[in-house]
Amino acid sequence: MSTNFSAINNVKFDASGLVPAIIQSFDSKRVLMMAWMSTESLALTISSGQTVFWSRSRQELWRKGATSGNAQFVRMIEIDCDGDTLLIQVDEQGNACHTGLESCFDTASIQIADELAQS
Amino acid sequence: MSTNFSAINNVKFDASGLVPAIIQSFDSKRVLMMAWMSTESLALTISSGQTVFWSRSRQELWRKGATSGNAQFVRMIEIDCDGDTLLIQVDEQGNACHTGLESCFDTASIQIADELAQS
Repeated sequence: MSTNFSAINNVKFDASGLVPAIIQSFDSKRVLMMAWMSTESLALTISSGQTVFWSRSRQELWRKGATSGNAQFVRMIEIDCDGDTLLIQVDEQGNACHTGLESCFDTASIQIADELAQS
Repeated sequence: MSTNFSAINNVKFDASGLVPAIIQSFDSKRVLMMAWMSTESLALTISSGQTVFWSRSRQELWRKGATSGNAQFVRMIEIDCDGDTLLIQVDEQGNACHTGLESCFDTASIQIADELAQS
């Protein structure tokens, strides 16, 4: 695995100038949330060591925890093989989800057929 | 957490009719890849118990492992709080990445400043 600052040049942003960032707890490995980053928010994430996203609904930079206090401290930023998705492992302060749950994925799940779930 | 078949109705597909699906190993909790699902590929994933994606580059359904043999067997499908991202935990057969690595995120990482990495 290559690890260097220039790896940021491998990131491919989409037509809207954004890249999806999967946020995972470094300790528990629970996937906490998925949000979007612009070049600016990714640069701010790297320079500050805390996650900063681009809010598509509010069309503004969104420093995670700025209002909630639930910041995320970056441990690792990995880029996928085609450069269009980030996986960011973090140390959490508080819970990731605005609902108060640890993970944004703690809310609902789709049940698959019982026979499929047996393995 | 509510778990039922109708939870599929909570999934919000984007303007292109797609939803991002984060694929995670059920056993190791390593995040393996991120790909996109249409309503049809999600339905096929649920009915077959194996991941089926929508290939944006090829504009066609893509059953993971159809050519590589590296299929993914679904253990759990979770929906995030705003319904626009899926987290799918799977049992892997072989490696997820076309590069031969376990995870598509095993290729490159962005180094963050040393002082930030110390914690």
